[in-house]
Amino acid sequence: MNGSRSAGIEHLALIGVGLIGGSLARALRRAGAVSRITGFSINLPELEKAVELGVIDAHAKNAAETATGADMVVVAVPLGAMGSVFAEISPALANEAVVTDVGSVKRCVIQDARATLGRHWPRFVPAHPVAGTERSGVEASLAQLFDRHRVVLTPLADTDLRAVQRVAAMWESAGAIVERMSVDDHDRILAASSHLPHVLAYVLVQTLATHARRDDIFRLAAGGFADFTRIASSDPRMWHDIVLANRDAILTISERFGENVASLLSALRSGDSDRITAVFDGAKKVRDEFEAHRRKRGLGSSAPPPGARP
Amino acid sequence: MNGSRSAGIEHLALIGVGLIGGSLARALRRAGAVSRITGFSINLPELEKAVELGVIDAHAKNAAETATGADMVVVAVPLGAMGSVFAEISPALANEAVVTDVGSVKRCVIQDARATLGRHWPRFVPAHPVAGTERSGVEASLAQLFDRHRVVLTPLADTDLRAVQRVAAMWESAGAIVERMSVDDHDRILAASSHLPHVLAYVLVQTLATHARRDDIFRLAAGGFADFTRIASSDPRMWHDIVLANRDAILTISERFGENVASLLSALRSGDSDRITAVFDGAKKVRDEFEAHRRKRGLGSSAPPPGARP
Repeated sequence: MNGSRSAGIEHLALIGVGLIGGSLARALRRAGAVSRITGFSINLPELEKAVELGVIDAHAKNAAETATGADMVVVAVPLGAMGSVFAEISPALANEAVVTDVGSVKRCVIQDARATLGRHWPRFVPAHPVAGTERSGVEASLAQLFDRHRVVLTPLADTDLRAVQRVAAMWESAGAIVERMSVDDHDRILAASSHLPHVLAYVLVQTLATHARRDDIFRLAAGGFADFTRIASSDPRMWHDIVLANRDAILTISERFGENVASLLSALRSGDSDRITAVFDGAKKVRDEFEAHRRKRGLGSSAPPPGARP
Repeated sequence: MNGSRSAGIEHLALIGVGLIGGSLARALRRAGAVSRITGFSINLPELEKAVELGVIDAHAKNAAETATGADMVVVAVPLGAMGSVFAEISPALANEAVVTDVGSVKRCVIQDARATLGRHWPRFVPAHPVAGTERSGVEASLAQLFDRHRVVLTPLADTDLRAVQRVAAMWESAGAIVERMSVDDHDRILAASSHLPHVLAYVLVQTLATHARRDDIFRLAAGGFADFTRIASSDPRMWHDIVLANRDAILTISERFGENVASLLSALRSGDSDRITAVFDGAKKVRDEFEAHRRKRGLGSSAPPPGARP
């Protein structure tokens, strides 16, 4: 995993020093894969905290300054801010600088990068580390956040192969398993595995928060509810950008999900015991297999403390 | 919590020795609140395992036999089996025996008990320990499962007050916080806090399991997905019974949830940034408050290992 290729980064410029940017910096330091890290964030207290915690060596006064002279530039900002960051850093980039991102939707980031990076475009490598927690900010960052987690690269036909290799090596040094995928595949798959669940968690909490018996509901909610809704504590700004950027894929999978919900509720209404059993049995089987695979990959049982039932 | 009233159970008869029954037995032993525990389960290997693990002292050959001479009878079987268990034990019950259950829906259990328990009906106390995990079976049982968790009692107008007090004392000895509530309130509130989330988790897993890119989806699913779908690993038989028993309340809250999902998807379709932000911001705020309350109650952060993001 690590070590087979050295990331060998001289100067990493980190634009955005939150959970993901901060964790990447920590993981690369842990691996001895980077000599120097500078950073910038529009959130000044976060930026100062990042220096204080030793996550970055120095902070710059803007994105262009931090990117100047860097051989690797990682843009770890919400999707809606990617375009303006790319536009700002483009004139400051060194000739051989590799630029990459960590966005959860790839199509929109690629459009922004193509429109703004000019001659640096071929050395832009779209990337998505599929890992995180519901917490945000540099204080929540962890060196082990990416260990054994997937990072998806979605290079285009005209992406420089050496740039792809450098970004892959960086993420492997950070403990991740790197794979490649087409942009459309990535965005459709993540709509199903991540974006739809987040929408459902947010809307469920909204629904219960506006219920007449809201206080009773939350008092009697146990560990199962806590787990189910944990992702509704995720950063709303980040998720606003994600759902808007990937709306077509999200609408498509939501429609299929909605049909399946309607079908189950119709079975419930008519007392169709067999149909309910088939759905629950089938889902449990698949979910148990998923958990077994996670354990095999060393991702932990992620088992909650007691308290998840009815 | 404990100790203020002693449960003082001479002979506890446990019908159903799974996660909930087994955990109650362990918790009462921990508290020294019970002298002898006998048990019965139609699942013979589970029953033998319960003796082997010391969860029960002896097993009987049927429900009536185990209930014979017991001063406290706890029926911890799936909802669909409650009626037949009550009918079977009724002739064997001692004059002063208290009978209680652990079912996640109260209306149906009460109907069954009223129809079958005869002269013992006033000493039947409907109860629901709101705690558990997605695991099932006596091997998953834990003495601390109910610590600081709620147990809801829904006694009726003609329920014997001393019987209610004995069941309350038992659950307090087991570490729980006991509260009373009307049957309708209980069933409506649990439909929202527990039953709907389980339906959604099962149907989401079903939807992804039948997706053309199923393998990619599960490979790229991270901790957030694992948390969101954990409850889809719950016992399908138990949940089949719960959703059918509480279908009206589940249909009502599902309808409200469906309207809110439709509204968010419509905002997404039209790019209504403000509406999306309002929902996500509001939900995060409420979810964070819920988590803070859980921690204050000592229920643990229930924070997952790294890996819950996009």
